[in-house]
Amino acid sequence: MAERRRLHLGAFMRPTTIHTGAWRYPGAYPDANFNFAHLKRFAQTLEAAKFDAFFMADHLAVLNMPVEALKRSHTVTSFDPFVLLPALAAVTERIGLVATASTTFEQPFHVARRFASLDHLSGGRAGWNIVTTSNPDAALNFGLDEHMEHDERYRRAREFYDVVTGLWDSFADDAFVRDVESGIFFDPDKMHVLGHKGPYFSVRGPLNVARPVQGWPVIFQAGASEAGRQLAAETAEVVFAGFSGLEDGRKVYADIKGRLDRLGRSRDHLKIMPGAFVVVGDSVEEAREKRARLDSLVHYDSAIASLSIALGHDVSKLDPDAPLPDLPQTNASHTGRERAIELARRENLTVRQLAQRLGGYSGLAFVGTAQTIADEMEEWLVTEGSDGFNIMFPFLPEGLDDFVAKVVPELQRRGLFRTDYEGTTLRDHFGLPRPGNRFFAAP
Amino acid sequence: MAERRRLHLGAFMRPTTIHTGAWRYPGAYPDANFNFAHLKRFAQTLEAAKFDAFFMADHLAVLNMPVEALKRSHTVTSFDPFVLLPALAAVTERIGLVATASTTFEQPFHVARRFASLDHLSGGRAGWNIVTTSNPDAALNFGLDEHMEHDERYRRAREFYDVVTGLWDSFADDAFVRDVESGIFFDPDKMHVLGHKGPYFSVRGPLNVARPVQGWPVIFQAGASEAGRQLAAETAEVVFAGFSGLEDGRKVYADIKGRLDRLGRSRDHLKIMPGAFVVVGDSVEEAREKRARLDSLVHYDSAIASLSIALGHDVSKLDPDAPLPDLPQTNASHTGRERAIELARRENLTVRQLAQRLGGYSGLAFVGTAQTIADEMEEWLVTEGSDGFNIMFPFLPEGLDDFVAKVVPELQRRGLFRTDYEGTTLRDHFGLPRPGNRFFAAP
Repeated sequence: MAERRRLHLGAFMRPTTIHTGAWRYPGAYPDANFNFAHLKRFAQTLEAAKFDAFFMADHLAVLNMPVEALKRSHTVTSFDPFVLLPALAAVTERIGLVATASTTFEQPFHVARRFASLDHLSGGRAGWNIVTTSNPDAALNFGLDEHMEHDERYRRAREFYDVVTGLWDSFADDAFVRDVESGIFFDPDKMHVLGHKGPYFSVRGPLNVARPVQGWPVIFQAGASEAGRQLAAETAEVVFAGFSGLEDGRKVYADIKGRLDRLGRSRDHLKIMPGAFVVVGDSVEEAREKRARLDSLVHYDSAIASLSIALGHDVSKLDPDAPLPDLPQTNASHTGRERAIELARRENLTVRQLAQRLGGYSGLAFVGTAQTIADEMEEWLVTEGSDGFNIMFPFLPEGLDDFVAKVVPELQRRGLFRTDYEGTTLRDHFGLPRPGNRFFAAP
Repeated sequence: MAERRRLHLGAFMRPTTIHTGAWRYPGAYPDANFNFAHLKRFAQTLEAAKFDAFFMADHLAVLNMPVEALKRSHTVTSFDPFVLLPALAAVTERIGLVATASTTFEQPFHVARRFASLDHLSGGRAGWNIVTTSNPDAALNFGLDEHMEHDERYRRAREFYDVVTGLWDSFADDAFVRDVESGIFFDPDKMHVLGHKGPYFSVRGPLNVARPVQGWPVIFQAGASEAGRQLAAETAEVVFAGFSGLEDGRKVYADIKGRLDRLGRSRDHLKIMPGAFVVVGDSVEEAREKRARLDSLVHYDSAIASLSIALGHDVSKLDPDAPLPDLPQTNASHTGRERAIELARRENLTVRQLAQRLGGYSGLAFVGTAQTIADEMEEWLVTEGSDGFNIMFPFLPEGLDDFVAKVVPELQRRGLFRTDYEGTTLRDHFGLPRPGNRFFAAP
């Protein structure tokens, strides 16, 4: 009998919680995003729970939102991933460390060098989340008046990836002999000068860092659009996508794994890990109350303005504590409008509750006990909706501590999650192969 | 009576030792540049000795040298400063952490954000060594066929500095109120949108990081050329220059401090710290023997080829173990040629010894006992040759451990060096003022 498939768990830690009301939750650390002592404690707790990875998204600008909402946002200040993750590498031993780096606003030589350095420093625990940066405000911080258009960003990303992986292969794995007697530090026949010239980049190389411990750091991608999914199928080893529910998840899962088949890649060599917001209670009711309390901390004035835009109808004059009435048809985006109305009906939400839910976090969520959450995760795994989850904690530290103390042991009891690390590298945790060097045969 | 001036000490740690034979020295760690366990141990040892700063130079390419020399060089693989220094920040508490970042091949938004992040993460210990990158091979790794010319690099550097410091001032020091009750995370009236548009950069801002602990991280520069010295006088707080000897040092010291006078800056607000290679023995003779042994580990074939170039005369056919004979006049650079001949005469070196000295390290060096080294350092301080030194260790760990165990206590005994840190930030260590925010009055 084949070994049972197990879940992979990442922690989505930038922002430490995606929920806009979280910093006001009782017992929360309002500065969790930007206090190294807290972040160190979180990473060590996640490592003790045997998480695969600590995952850092990134933004290259203060988020473009109205000032009334912005001034309430705990995301406005946070560490650069390439400062936080090396620091966490120094105070952890096994957990993977995944940093986002933009192919639109970075240079491939810098990116190759930083990830190679992090991989060496951490003993093979680095992962690169490739993003093309969709926030047009970022362009204004990098000398571009107009944001690069979507398809061009993806063409550039593909070439960027080719350059970075080529630079990682600058040295054979056994190039550094360090022979004190003869005085030979490395074998120059085992150094490759890349000499890349393409439409977007001209990069000579070689990299001034030895080949990474993992050969290449693990490649992550979000991969939502058509171009994004294809880039992911060609290059990614972990896809971290935002799925709205199991039905949607199974569709995307089948689509991406199907692309692997057509490319001749093994289905096991790309893991699909949707983001999931998890609220744990000792009863389902308690979990729902926690979520309702959290949502209630979202500022109503900002939330109702956003809801009016989503519905294409000014709902700010309605009774906030009554159910959402039937609304006339409008020109608002159908998807957003229908999703909001459907959510209000399904959970029987008042106007205020609906506004605050959408203003806080409204994507994929598991809200319940350790048992019901493990049930849902198991269903996703067994029915091929995902290979695991990138967990978003509702508030810190309580939401993280609850997940680790309650959900992880339940998953372990069911044989759905490891009880200890079985290897030392991030590739080991995911069961991913170590890439060969394109320029040198294995020693 | 005014308090006695004291020395400032930095450790020049990239490469961990600049001497090309160092990795072959008995007891040395051949991989010291690239082994985090060693580097952590070095940083903690330097902190226990109360060093001001751990300083990391940088190269954005494998050094351009003939392959016969390159394959013997321990510098070919080393960590990116922005991976190593955050990791060291997590395992130290007081020592300053100075990273080199190039204004020619980086973007100001990234640089501002990384240094601000490092300053917060380390509790105010970050320093930025501004370089314009003189290695033309670096340009080839960043899509430029030709290296930017010297004066243009300096004009770009000056604008880069203005943008970075402007981004550091994006928020008033008291902008982040995090008022849980009202839900206000920060005061938007205390956020400044930079809106910089200049010849080289267009950067909107604001930075997505709170103002650094130090206001601005401490600014370091090498400042050797005329343009470099002027940029240093206008912007730098520590100048790390390469001086050949005390006479040269006093000239450059007077020149740079004079520029400060003319700019209306206090002489105390820019510290001059030349690099100094220090070999410690229990007797002067023992120290000289250590250095001779170290020099003897430089590969003769590479060294004699370089010496021939420096002298403008093929000396490879001469008896390597005889003194350097008189040589006919040539077209070789007078400075290099005369310096080599003068060195051979002064120290009575054979051809081999001269070649290996120049191939290893031939700049400012203090070779002697703790007493003679402290005498020399004191003379530099008292006669205004420098405000301290950036120490280059001849080999690791012995050279570093000897300096800390023998020279530091002798300097402390004389009252020339602190016996404990008196503050927590790098500015505190140097006695530098915290810059005001150009957009907001102090709270």
